[in-house]
Order: sequence, then C-alpha cells, then structure tokens
Amino acid sequence: MAGVDFAGRVTLHDVAAAAGVSIATASKALNDTGRMSADTRARIRRVAQEMGFRPNVLAKSLTSKRSFTVGLLTNDTYGRFTLPVMAGISEGLIDHGVSVFLCTVEDNPELAKIHVDAMLDKQVDGIIATGKRIDKPLPVDLSKLSVPVVYALTAGPADAVTLLPNDRQGADEAVQHLIAERRQRIVHITGPGAFRVVQERAAAFSEALDRAGLPVSDAAILQGDWSERWGHEAVAMLWSGDAQPDGIFCGNDQIARGVIDALRERGVGVPAQVSVVGFDNWEIVAEQTRPPLTTVDMNLKELGRQAGQALLRLVNGEAVEQGLWKLPCTLVVRGS
Amino acid sequence: MAGVDFAGRVTLHDVAAAAGVSIATASKALNDTGRMSADTRARIRRVAQEMGFRPNVLAKSLTSKRSFTVGLLTNDTYGRFTLPVMAGISEGLIDHGVSVFLCTVEDNPELAKIHVDAMLDKQVDGIIATGKRIDKPLPVDLSKLSVPVVYALTAGPADAVTLLPNDRQGADEAVQHLIAERRQRIVHITGPGAFRVVQERAAAFSEALDRAGLPVSDAAILQGDWSERWGHEAVAMLWSGDAQPDGIFCGNDQIARGVIDALRERGVGVPAQVSVVGFDNWEIVAEQTRPPLTTVDMNLKELGRQAGQALLRLVNGEAVEQGLWKLPCTLVVRGS
Repeated sequence: MAGVDFAGRVTLHDVAAAAGVSIATASKALNDTGRMSADTRARIRRVAQEMGFRPNVLAKSLTSKRSFTVGLLTNDTYGRFTLPVMAGISEGLIDHGVSVFLCTVEDNPELAKIHVDAMLDKQVDGIIATGKRIDKPLPVDLSKLSVPVVYALTAGPADAVTLLPNDRQGADEAVQHLIAERRQRIVHITGPGAFRVVQERAAAFSEALDRAGLPVSDAAILQGDWSERWGHEAVAMLWSGDAQPDGIFCGNDQIARGVIDALRERGVGVPAQVSVVGFDNWEIVAEQTRPPLTTVDMNLKELGRQAGQALLRLVNGEAVEQGLWKLPCTLVVRGS
Repeated sequence: MAGVDFAGRVTLHDVAAAAGVSIATASKALNDTGRMSADTRARIRRVAQEMGFRPNVLAKSLTSKRSFTVGLLTNDTYGRFTLPVMAGISEGLIDHGVSVFLCTVEDNPELAKIHVDAMLDKQVDGIIATGKRIDKPLPVDLSKLSVPVVYALTAGPADAVTLLPNDRQGADEAVQHLIAERRQRIVHITGPGAFRVVQERAAAFSEALDRAGLPVSDAAILQGDWSERWGHEAVAMLWSGDAQPDGIFCGNDQIARGVIDALRERGVGVPAQVSVVGFDNWEIVAEQTRPPLTTVDMNLKELGRQAGQALLRLVNGEAVEQGLWKLPCTLVVRGS
C-alpha cells in the first residue's frame, strides 16, 4: 500500500541541515538579519521554500495583539443565510488582510462551547455570531469573551452591536409595489406566527394597506409554514371562498413559488390577474419561478460587510454605536 | 453615543491585580501548581473567569505538535455541497476535540493564497480541500504545504488522498430502479458535457441499459444546463417527436423538477406513465416536487466524515491509502 506520512513539521533545524549551514545562519537568512552573501541568503531561502518551511507565526503573534482572523459562528447548517453574510464579511475585511473562519454549531451548547474555545485558542481578533433567526440566540453565551463580538442575523444582547435586515421596510416596499400595480385586494401568505420576522412583515403589511386606504382584515394574513406546499394550500383556501385577491405578498420565496405554481394550475394569470411578491431573493428559487419572481432582497452580503467593519473598529479599540442596526432591504422587480 | 471598547485582552497581570495577589501566585492558581489554600485558589480562578481571562494557548501550543483544528477550503460559495461535507467532518472529528474552520476562496488565486496562509499561520493540523466540481482543482496549489491535505469533492493531485462520490454506481442504481419499474424507453436528461460527472453518469446510464438488453441511442442522452428550465425544454423536445420515453433519469434534482412540472402540465402522469429519477437528493427541491422525487444521494456527510478521519490519520503520522476513494451513493425512493 502506498503511503503518505506527515509525522512532523519542517523545522528550522531541517532547513539548516538541508542547506548545509548552522541553525543560526539559517535563522539569520530567513529573518533577513546578520551578515552573509546575497547568494547564500537566497539559497537558504530557496531551500526553506522548497521544503515548505514556515516560520513559527504562533511565536511571532505572541508579540503582537492582532492575529488577523475573525471567527464566524453560525447555527445555519444549510448556509443559505450564512454564506452570503460570510462572503460580505470576507469582502469587507480582505483588504485589511483579515481572513474569516466559519464554525457551525447547530443548536448544541456543548459543541458551541468547544468551537468557541477553539476560536479563542487561535486568538481570533473577534467573533461574529450569525444564524437563521433574528429572534433566537446561538446556543452559547458570547457576552463575556475577551474579544469583541458582533451579532448579524441572530439575536444579540442589548448592549451589543446587532445587525439585522429591516424587515418592516422590506415588507413595506413589497406592499407598496403591489399598490402601485393597482392591486385592490391584497393578502399576505406567510410563515409561522412564532417567528419575529413573520410578525414584523405582517405589521408592515397591515400598516401599508391602512395608509393606502385599502381594507385590512385578519383574514388577509394567512400563517402556515415556510414551504411551497403551504403556498398551494393557501391558494386552494382563498380560491374556494367568495372574493379572490388580486395581489399576494408572500413571507418567503418558497411560499411564493407554491402560490405561483398553484395559480398557473388554476388558470389564473400571473401577473395579469394576480401580482405576487416574495421575500428573500433566493435566486435559485426566484429565477426559476414562472414568471420569475419579484421579491425582497435582504442584502445579506452588505450586512456581512458592515458587520465585519464594525468588528474591525471594535478590535482597533474604536467606539461603535451599540444596539440594533437595521439595514435596508431592496425590492427586486422581476416578472410576477 | 454609547460605546464598546476592547482595546486589549485581559492579562495575567490584570487578574493578579484584581485578585490582590502576585503574578506568580495568580499563575500558580490558574495552572493548578504551587501551594496555597483551596479558598485562595478558588477565589483567583473565579476572578479570572469573571474577567474573561484566557490562558495564552498560543504559548502552550508551541510545546505541542497539535493545534486541534482543521482548515476546510472551498470554492462552493453557495455551500450546497460544502456544508454537508463540513457537517460530516465536524461530526467525525469532534470526539477527538478537533474543530473545523471553513474559508471560502471563490475562484480567486490571490484570495485563496491569503486564506491558506492564514490557516497555516494558525498552525492548523491539516487542510481539507473541497468544492463543487470533481474535475476542477481549487485555485491554489496545496501540494507543497507542511501539513497534510485531503481532497473531498474536488480534484486533487494523483499522489494525494481524494474522496469522491461514486457517480457511476449512483447512476447505475438510478437506471436499475427505472428498469425494475418495467420502463422500456429510458432517456437521460443531464447537464453540460464538459462536466466529468455528466460523462460518468451518462456512461453508467448507457452501460446499464445495454446490460438489460434495452436500446441505447445517442439521442437518448440530452445535454443542457443544470436548470429547471432545461428540464422543461427537454420535455418539450421529447414530446414533439414520435416516440415518448416512459422513464427519465435526470442529471440533477433541478432538471428533474422541471421535467416533472412539464409532464404534469402536459397531463402526463408521474409515475403512472413516466417514472423520473433525479440526482443529488437536495431535499429542499426533492421533497417539494409533486410527487416527491426519487433521487440519488451522494452521502456527502459520510464523505466528509471519512475525509476528516483520513486527515486525522495523516496528522498522526499513520499511513493512508493514496489515490481516489470512491464512496457509494444511495438511491432514495420517493414517489416519482
């Protein structure tokens, strides 16, 4: 059986031996100090590089306060929300030479503690906590760590910096769009009432209708789960009644997908007879919907970028405004 | 403006000052050495804990070879393939006290180099490279690092350990299933021919039909893109011809979703008239398809688990078989 063996790291000793010089000379060559010919210095460096030698940066970082890494903790194991946030953090910090390391903790407090300890052991400069619900904290208390913590798309303590999408403003834009399309009978088909985002989006829905002088009834808000199936069911319920809506604001893109499929199968034209707006701008769903889905984008990448920059300011000892930062959503108009 | 300020870490000096003891005493209390009353030791430890003091593990790890962290590098920015792989690695390594840190590198060589350097600076015990295509390497050469590297769901060099799903066996099971359902005219609707997985799955498709004595023609393999839209188009093409298939093996779940929707809209019963099998078992698609989709699962979590354990053996200096490890796929039978 062929084998690979990595019993140890390449040490300065190994480099010196391979180059046929003393450890002191090898060290001077690699640290660009001491006296030797340019050729010797270049040769030792080449040997070190070929052997894959890395100076012991752990030892170096003992003398500096910064490790130029940020830990990202999440319980979003699908990554649908976390990976755009991570991409934004990386993009915002890469010019500062900072790398982002993601650890997923699921909803397991013990696992979370192990991973947080590993991050602290690595002397990360700070931690960003993120997740999949704005009303649930991660299963680990990050409030007493020795490094700064920023919360993004997850619940944080009151005295922390917490970045969330502005669900109300996003929902308001969705409903404004339906009103601008001259829709008169608008309903909201959304997820489980226990979710804060469901409450926020429903409140914005009612307020926007009220402001426009359109009727708002409790029956106009249908709560179910976050699935396509629920979109189908809700359409079946609405179309078994007397008066059908001409505008539907859905709590997420999957519900909207189910709604649009159900309408097409009933022969109801979208957007000719009914306009539909989703929420999330999950492109893999929104772009394949027929017609492509008009939906609200939470700008998670920008949220991540701002979270990274807030953390960097804290790491640098600069003051940062505490509390909730609500970042604007954007309506993406497609064909529905 | 309220402010948060984290200019520095809590040091041993800070703990000693707060506890009113010498640095030497504080150090002994925290390292569980030296002589002092149990009360004093407990009090100093409590003070340290309340202040969020962390012993300098960087200094400690200088004396040990292991850092108990593994770096995971990916260019799969959606995370659809990487997060199951990561979950498997974590699950397999957590009992060894090892944490997994993910860095996404997109397809940018410079970015990749910065992140790999950051991982090496952190003295990760090893790196697992993963991605979204088995025929494309990551945009960075990992073959000369001073730590072991394992490749999972991405192309690796010949002398490395590379774990891939067994696409041929998975595709064979899909076609065997259609044959067992007494389908006689089976076609394959798949992705772009440049993808290795397309070639592998198509080869297995042809071989399985041939073995069963069923006709195989070039026309039975339709290559397009990985989208629902292509599933619709392929059905339109097939149903405009003379002879329609009664079994369709799709190259991924999104194509299968488009195929099933298109068949339903033509009034063709699934599975009554046509059986459909997908590939990926991407649950968010497969479970919401009507009927729910029968599809091939690549067992990415298990693949991650085995990648993590292979890496651990390399880190421990144990021999590991080089080359390609092809791990079995599983057919998940649902309603289609």
